[in-house]
Amino acid sequence: MIIVVKNSCEQQQFNNLVEWIKELGLDVHVSRGEQSTVLGLVGDTSKVDQDLISSLDIVEQVQRVQEPYKNANRKFHPVDTVVEVGGTKIGGDNFTVIAGPCSVESESQIIEVAKAVKKAGATLLRGGAFKPRTSPYAFQGLKDTGIGLLLKAKEETGLPIVTELLSVSHLDLFKDVDIIQIGARNMQNFELLKEVGKTGKPILLKRGLANTLQELLMSAEYIMAEGDCQVILCERGIRTFETMTRNTLDLSAVPALKEKTHLPIIIDPSHSTGIAKFVEPMSLASVGAGADGLIIEVHNDPKRALCDGAQSLNPEQFSSLMGKVGAMAKLVGKKVNF
Amino acid sequence: MIIVVKNSCEQQQFNNLVEWIKELGLDVHVSRGEQSTVLGLVGDTSKVDQDLISSLDIVEQVQRVQEPYKNANRKFHPVDTVVEVGGTKIGGDNFTVIAGPCSVESESQIIEVAKAVKKAGATLLRGGAFKPRTSPYAFQGLKDTGIGLLLKAKEETGLPIVTELLSVSHLDLFKDVDIIQIGARNMQNFELLKEVGKTGKPILLKRGLANTLQELLMSAEYIMAEGDCQVILCERGIRTFETMTRNTLDLSAVPALKEKTHLPIIIDPSHSTGIAKFVEPMSLASVGAGADGLIIEVHNDPKRALCDGAQSLNPEQFSSLMGKVGAMAKLVGKKVNF
Amino acid sequence: MIIVVKNSCEQQQFNNLVEWIKELGLDVHVSRGEQSTVLGLVGDTSKVDQDLISSLDIVEQVQRVQEPYKNANRKFHPVDTVVEVGGTKIGGDNFTVIAGPCSVESESQIIEVAKAVKKAGATLLRGGAFKPRTSPYAFQGLKDTGIGLLLKAKEETGLPIVTELLSVSHLDLFKDVDIIQIGARNMQNFELLKEVGKTGKPILLKRGLANTLQELLMSAEYIMAEGDCQVILCERGIRTFETMTRNTLDLSAVPALKEKTHLPIIIDPSHSTGIAKFVEPMSLASVGAGADGLIIEVHNDPKRALCDGAQSLNPEQFSSLMGKVGAMAKLVGKKVNF
Amino acid sequence: MIIVVKNSCEQQQFNNLVEWIKELGLDVHVSRGEQSTVLGLVGDTSKVDQDLISSLDIVEQVQRVQEPYKNANRKFHPVDTVVEVGGTKIGGDNFTVIAGPCSVESESQIIEVAKAVKKAGATLLRGGAFKPRTSPYAFQGLKDTGIGLLLKAKEETGLPIVTELLSVSHLDLFKDVDIIQIGARNMQNFELLKEVGKTGKPILLKRGLANTLQELLMSAEYIMAEGDCQVILCERGIRTFETMTRNTLDLSAVPALKEKTHLPIIIDPSHSTGIAKFVEPMSLASVGAGADGLIIEVHNDPKRALCDGAQSLNPEQFSSLMGKVGAMAKLVGKKVNF
Repeated sequence: MIIVVKNSCEQQQFNNLVEWIKELGLDVHVSRGEQSTVLGLVGDTSKVDQDLISSLDIVEQVQRVQEPYKNANRKFHPVDTVVEVGGTKIGGDNFTVIAGPCSVESESQIIEVAKAVKKAGATLLRGGAFKPRTSPYAFQGLKDTGIGLLLKAKEETGLPIVTELLSVSHLDLFKDVDIIQIGARNMQNFELLKEVGKTGKPILLKRGLANTLQELLMSAEYIMAEGDCQVILCERGIRTFETMTRNTLDLSAVPALKEKTHLPIIIDPSHSTGIAKFVEPMSLASVGAGADGLIIEVHNDPKRALCDGAQSLNPEQFSSLMGKVGAMAKLVGKKVNF
Repeated sequence: MIIVVKNSCEQQQFNNLVEWIKELGLDVHVSRGEQSTVLGLVGDTSKVDQDLISSLDIVEQVQRVQEPYKNANRKFHPVDTVVEVGGTKIGGDNFTVIAGPCSVESESQIIEVAKAVKKAGATLLRGGAFKPRTSPYAFQGLKDTGIGLLLKAKEETGLPIVTELLSVSHLDLFKDVDIIQIGARNMQNFELLKEVGKTGKPILLKRGLANTLQELLMSAEYIMAEGDCQVILCERGIRTFETMTRNTLDLSAVPALKEKTHLPIIIDPSHSTGIAKFVEPMSLASVGAGADGLIIEVHNDPKRALCDGAQSLNPEQFSSLMGKVGAMAKLVGKKVNF
Repeated sequence: MIIVVKNSCEQQQFNNLVEWIKELGLDVHVSRGEQSTVLGLVGDTSKVDQDLISSLDIVEQVQRVQEPYKNANRKFHPVDTVVEVGGTKIGGDNFTVIAGPCSVESESQIIEVAKAVKKAGATLLRGGAFKPRTSPYAFQGLKDTGIGLLLKAKEETGLPIVTELLSVSHLDLFKDVDIIQIGARNMQNFELLKEVGKTGKPILLKRGLANTLQELLMSAEYIMAEGDCQVILCERGIRTFETMTRNTLDLSAVPALKEKTHLPIIIDPSHSTGIAKFVEPMSLASVGAGADGLIIEVHNDPKRALCDGAQSLNPEQFSSLMGKVGAMAKLVGKKVNF
Repeated sequence: MIIVVKNSCEQQQFNNLVEWIKELGLDVHVSRGEQSTVLGLVGDTSKVDQDLISSLDIVEQVQRVQEPYKNANRKFHPVDTVVEVGGTKIGGDNFTVIAGPCSVESESQIIEVAKAVKKAGATLLRGGAFKPRTSPYAFQGLKDTGIGLLLKAKEETGLPIVTELLSVSHLDLFKDVDIIQIGARNMQNFELLKEVGKTGKPILLKRGLANTLQELLMSAEYIMAEGDCQVILCERGIRTFETMTRNTLDLSAVPALKEKTHLPIIIDPSHSTGIAKFVEPMSLASVGAGADGLIIEVHNDPKRALCDGAQSLNPEQFSSLMGKVGAMAKLVGKKVNF
């Protein structure tokens, strides 16, 4: 960490700052310039509160040189993490597709969709049982019943299941869930991150709507600090001023994260665009960007099917998409099983 | 709610959509135009999923006419809500200041600060016991000990206390806390909102970094739907591209919220700017914008005091600020007790 | 256009609004609801000031149904526009790559780079002669000399040239330039748009850093309203809170624009990310998203080459990239000549 | 400027970088750390291209210590600039209000509004003659006729006039205009900035919708580098995700700019919010934040008056606002003449 101190500051203030840093167990290298003095902090600066220091009157600027994350950092773990679950691999040179309905609605629905996505090449089943909804008056999911139906679909198809956890108090219901999803709105629900980190299960961590990639890595670090290193990162669109798509899918996140971390990165083209016909181009774009996989919404609703829309694809559209995704993934050197 | 349907859609698709809406218990008024057809939905549209409908292929646009919140809506509750706690009032024509340290650090610290802010005119004491930190390696607060010290400071000074709740599992510790704060990162932690709504206590709800004002009102609605109508809204800066301040304080939120809701609105000039010397101008600006109060960080740390900085004010700076805030609040017709 | 009027408004105010709309030559259909009244405006609403109407006290909301652009609108021109320049085609089922240095620096530099990019498959040469720089003290380009050097490189290689125009007063110097580029900072310099529209030349219009896709189309409309329909749109990253990349490349813009307009859309992966090693993944992602081409920075600077960085690729990196881009473009059904 | 270089870089690359910096006329201080090496650049770094250096592969981070602006920098010019025009002062301890219609529409309109705003205490008259409009089909202003009408209103009332310049080619028409306004969309139209800098007239420079405060100061620097130091900065709202107001007024810009520059700063509450009833609270908030003045839209349109809305105030509303603004400005120690 580098701290630039104004030369206008009093000696006493300067000494206080240096002493304070040393109390944190760090060494300080001082180099005086004409208008300012640069302090180089040597040692483990991950505990230093950058905001606090940068807000001091005598401080011109503060800059981290070392990243504040360790377990998630590629510098210390150069080899790609590969998460294995039920015979499926996520990360490394694998390309993996998770698919399923937005919400679990009934036994026939989830089993039918599960069979369809398995046939098309998906190796994990997603489905919402607990749904985070902006409005308290909106449908909040089938909850424990939904979890039960997902487990039936798993039994029927062999597909491991991914579903979202909203609260520590529901954790008991998730003991047979294969991958626990932490949604965008809970990316900085640190108490929840600590608890899922204790389960040792694979965690699918979605980027918050207004969170930087560094914050995403810090949230992964929360989980990994509890000993759970099976974290899968997911980019699902960020909030910007643009309104033609629901959110702005930040695909540059893929190469940026790949450089910083060894964790797998998958893309959610369904939620980010919010529009079914954009799912295919953005899925192919994700493959080009170097992603390790996709999580895609597939529905099976005859009424919705007639309207032919929504952010979900129907099984035929999904199957057609998988053909194109597979061909492109092979072209960029990924292993696919479809 | 208004739905604009493309005239290019097939009759069958159109009928499906209309039928679907009627199944939700709503009436539909159809008016055909040259290029598109407008459906007017009559009835309680708060349960209609706008995202789903707008993503249908045959739909051009969807627009809500009614706001999706009710309890928080000024249309149905025109009179300002005034929250009362320990003899202090927030809302209506009162101007109220909450002050205290960022974190509770020790008994002497919190009591000393409490006395200082009370003397200057603050009527509520804030202080963090559970701290949400981006890094798992950063200080996470004194936790239950911190709550205990806040209660001692309350005993000593009579000031009611405000402190942040991070998890449902800590709720037992908050039974003597006067106002429960829900932080920006948990604004859409819906399970937490439901639980605090059941306490019946006053809730200080901070706007999320990337949340719209309508989403803030929907989160208030979560609390109010549980029967707890004592919600205080707090603007604390949003995330933008600007870097000279930590966040961008959105003061237009004050008149915008005042128009939409009867709930009190206070401003946090400390966290939003992140810079002590900007706290005074932004506090005075808040008064001008019509806010009902302020929540301000005041510290009592001799070392930090020597550096004379951070986002916290020292007691002298706070006292000086209060004089100016009081004079300006009177000028705009607010009642102040300082 | 749909206007939702509050039922609380006085009859006189309502009549004034309706009369005012009729004076604009539009028909008004009125449908009264319980809490509000919906006005449907029929006719050419492109001249109606949406901002003005939505700010009226009696108006709840305003929504356009028709897009405010015509010449750029796919509804009225369903067939893809293909821009032809010097034997090269941009748009339709072609995939086209524009390449060259950020700034023209010397005759040998521009000619050497031109030869290298031509060999690798680029069919247009880019190079900055007039450079928009944030600082008045930074290098502003070789100006007219730079244009001359670009023309020499064209003579030498046969590649048509693309270069940026900053001011109407430089227009004379651009008479032999093949494609005039309007940069992001000038996307809403409407006087400049009008003037380039009068040249009849192909115009490469870059999206502004904080401009919506609809605003981009409105700026294209400015050029097309002058009779020039050869507009090429370019996504080059938008400004967000993320800092790991210089800007956030919005690739969802490709399918979103393709739906709304018949104009070709190309991507600039160099400026958007600002980092050389991200150019390849984002180029491949652009192909996947369905873009019509790329504009890529290629340099030829031995010193910079040693450092092996910057947002520019060296000729070897560019050549390697082109092989991958070509293979992927063919996979998605595009014609490539490399 | 500080450059952090990775220790993994080759000696040859490192030497190249150091040599390159020295070629720019700068001294380099090297301090080696365990994981990285810090280069301190001494000398005039305003010409160094930070983007270029930060994109080099061997570079971890780059940080400016000195601001890249000089003429606008308070460090070198600690005393507030006071712009004087026609007996009115802007800056220092003065509080000044500019008012007038959005567009000049007719002789009677502009003269009537001019008289009304003068009576209420405004000392400068604003009015648009050349209007930047998103749509080519929208009214683009009365142009030269509009300038003529503004000059008549000036003759009639003595109020100096402020109006927006869109293009260098219109500059001749502006020779009798007192203050030339550069609009938000042209904040980085650098050719236009250079030309207005040559006029020596006071320039009202509006912040771009997505421009940082540092970029605003760099654009002021463009004007000042031409010898014109009478620049007035104007905050008018930035683009964010929030939709309840047209833009997000960034009032923290006032103390942030006051610290960095000696130039006067005024606020435009009309355009930023886009809603007439928010003009009063945001005007008072601007006074609290420490602004040097306001620019407010006042109309005189009987039809619009009946609807009682739009972002413009009518003369009565403006007069009432001025009373409150004056009282508050005095309270914060500003001189007002109303």
